[in-house]
Amino acid sequence: MNFDALFQNQLDTLKEEGNYRYFAELERKCGKFPHAANHQEDGEVRDVTVWCSNDYLGMGQNPLVIDAMCEAVQRTGTGAGGTRNISGTNHDHLLLERELADLHNKEAALLFTSGYVSNWAALSTLGSRLKDCIILSDSGNHASMIEGIRHSRAQKVIWEHNNVADLEEKLQALPANAPKIIAFESVYSMDGDIAPIREIVEVAEKYGAMTYLDEVHAVGLYGPRGGGVAEQEGLMDRITLLEGTLGKAYGVVGGFITGSAALCDFIRSFASGFIFTTALPPAVAAAARASIRHLKESDTERTQHRAQVAKLRAGLDRAGIPHLMNKSHIIPVMIKDPVKTKMLADYLMDEWGIYVQPINYPTVPKGTERLRFTPSPLHSDADIDHLVAALSSLWKQCAIAHAVA
Amino acid sequence: MNFDALFQNQLDTLKEEGNYRYFAELERKCGKFPHAANHQEDGEVRDVTVWCSNDYLGMGQNPLVIDAMCEAVQRTGTGAGGTRNISGTNHDHLLLERELADLHNKEAALLFTSGYVSNWAALSTLGSRLKDCIILSDSGNHASMIEGIRHSRAQKVIWEHNNVADLEEKLQALPANAPKIIAFESVYSMDGDIAPIREIVEVAEKYGAMTYLDEVHAVGLYGPRGGGVAEQEGLMDRITLLEGTLGKAYGVVGGFITGSAALCDFIRSFASGFIFTTALPPAVAAAARASIRHLKESDTERTQHRAQVAKLRAGLDRAGIPHLMNKSHIIPVMIKDPVKTKMLADYLMDEWGIYVQPINYPTVPKGTERLRFTPSPLHSDADIDHLVAALSSLWKQCAIAHAVA
Ligand SMILES: Cc1ncc(COP(=O)(O)O)c(C=O)c1O
Ligand SMILES: Cc1ncc(COP(=O)(O)O)c(C=O)c1O
Repeated sequence: MNFDALFQNQLDTLKEEGNYRYFAELERKCGKFPHAANHQEDGEVRDVTVWCSNDYLGMGQNPLVIDAMCEAVQRTGTGAGGTRNISGTNHDHLLLERELADLHNKEAALLFTSGYVSNWAALSTLGSRLKDCIILSDSGNHASMIEGIRHSRAQKVIWEHNNVADLEEKLQALPANAPKIIAFESVYSMDGDIAPIREIVEVAEKYGAMTYLDEVHAVGLYGPRGGGVAEQEGLMDRITLLEGTLGKAYGVVGGFITGSAALCDFIRSFASGFIFTTALPPAVAAAARASIRHLKESDTERTQHRAQVAKLRAGLDRAGIPHLMNKSHIIPVMIKDPVKTKMLADYLMDEWGIYVQPINYPTVPKGTERLRFTPSPLHSDADIDHLVAALSSLWKQCAIAHAVA
Repeated sequence: MNFDALFQNQLDTLKEEGNYRYFAELERKCGKFPHAANHQEDGEVRDVTVWCSNDYLGMGQNPLVIDAMCEAVQRTGTGAGGTRNISGTNHDHLLLERELADLHNKEAALLFTSGYVSNWAALSTLGSRLKDCIILSDSGNHASMIEGIRHSRAQKVIWEHNNVADLEEKLQALPANAPKIIAFESVYSMDGDIAPIREIVEVAEKYGAMTYLDEVHAVGLYGPRGGGVAEQEGLMDRITLLEGTLGKAYGVVGGFITGSAALCDFIRSFASGFIFTTALPPAVAAAARASIRHLKESDTERTQHRAQVAKLRAGLDRAGIPHLMNKSHIIPVMIKDPVKTKMLADYLMDEWGIYVQPINYPTVPKGTERLRFTPSPLHSDADIDHLVAALSSLWKQCAIAHAVA
């Protein structure tokens, strides 16, 4: 059997649709963020401004975080040396878990190798081990939650994105005594809209459902200590499980959940994706902890972040460039065609030194392709002006303005 | 609904069975491996010799690897800043992928956040996207493969562990023109036995099946350049997909597959577990690459590793302590009861400063609980003598000797 032909066949389809992905090869340079080197196909290396990073606050190049990581590498080495159960639990992991529990004011926290794995492992374990469990999943949920729910083989009920009336209708129709989990996100990363957390919590309490909230695009960024949107809204204690990442605003890598001691111990004890994998390097844990601690104390990054986000929005508005309105730090400009989106991104890269990855299927539904801009506190006013100028010129030049109007 | 009570209930069952897990809290100390500090419940910190690490060669504390990681942290920062598609692909990732492709003499390689994720993502993608695909899975396969196959919802046929006749019988019974994948491991980590790779490859070729080989416990350790058992046996070019980890013999964290360009591009393009997650920090990639490069050139660690493994086996034999016979570096001593296994491990820790984690369900089947020793090139002869003395004294003291005879 010619397996390569089977593979190539499906890849060719992607290419025909314009959905084949070309990764931009970057070289991050300490102290330069959001600027980076870009290695091009022909071997040329040039400077670009990165406009689509999820190192939202630039913490991945913060000297405190860098020093914490190097110190821990020098002190403990480069790896954990085992799964958490078999020699892989290090003092640094436990310190980080305590830091995370404190972040969300919960009894306990549990660390995973990524946010993806934390969602997948936690939801698949809850869904499969709670007898007759039903998971109510927001229709906009991230792939990691969808796959976790799917893997659990629990009954799944999808409710309309951010629509609490629909959620309640669906809750009402379910057997009163089945365990129910409402799974949703605070900040949806592709549209940048924010869930009505308070209303969801109220409905959950009314129907005795557990709440599972993904704060991946909010931890570090929202709330006085960076706990996320639930902290900002004073709702953390009413959410059963909070999930987050160490790879975005905190600038490192890894994922976690926080909740009651029994909940975390349950996932710790039963989740395949937690048990059967090498623990994160202690140095990663140490770096993440330094980042979290800093953002618990300091609001400077968040304030400056909001300022630069507002400036970019204002600039786009002045230039008449339509962008999705939302209350978050994510600024999507809809193009609605994969080929056009890539063309625009290529042009921005080649002519303006602006790197923004075209966002296409399966990250967003087909027909909703977009450029997604994520200003950081380290994007200067000049960076913003440059981006607005580039987009303005594009919008003027091309028929695209009309196509997307 | 009282969710905590539901969780606690299942945890209580684990405790009653003796299957509840207590993680040992370690502090790895650079330059001291296999010695480490152990933080105990009562706050006491003491020195222990780690006898169950999967940092098999101590590369996690190798100065070359440490320097590579710190250099890259200083150069690039602590995180990748995005998924591979959205600003997360760094020059260091591509260098590592080239290094890995070269390791297995394949066209391409693909990096994942862990070995677990690489198995889960690759198998679930292959199984779900190859129409009518059937996966033939060795009955001893690792959880990450089992979950990946389960997630794919492809037809699954389990063949008897390492039994090629049984595999062939099962292949014969399947429709000739369905795509088939034979999934297996080289070194099985809990028994330490090694698959008859050549015979499996021959059967695979006869039936036109693709071979999927997990070399997680073999990369870095076997073969003249650390390619794994398939390299040692001169069989790499006959295996369709090789999978491995950067978290065990290479001493860092992460996972990978190698294979044809079309195969790797296929997984890159379709695997949810690859696409929707933050890329590993470039510094992790740089450290792993340094480790791989070193072990391609140097045989010193492997030679010394084999020597210490042989010494421990000989010591156990002299002391009359039964251990599983196998051709690998893994030395399991079967106890066959979870409570006894934990009791022995606690005694070794408390009285002898020897840390070996009791291995229980679900890592091994119930009734096959064991102590699993992994000597490294850095365990001194004195460390080995000390371990043998401890076990001898235990075997003499306790009735356990009879129980396990
Ligand atoms: C909503 C959401 N949850 C989870 C994840 C996964 O987190 P991580 O990148 O740490 O794997 C992502 C993105 O990567 C995400 O957007
Ligand atoms: C056979 C096998 N495959 C895969 C894995 C997962 O690799 P990683 O620890 O890198 O997630 C493990 C152990 O952890 C394993 O034993």
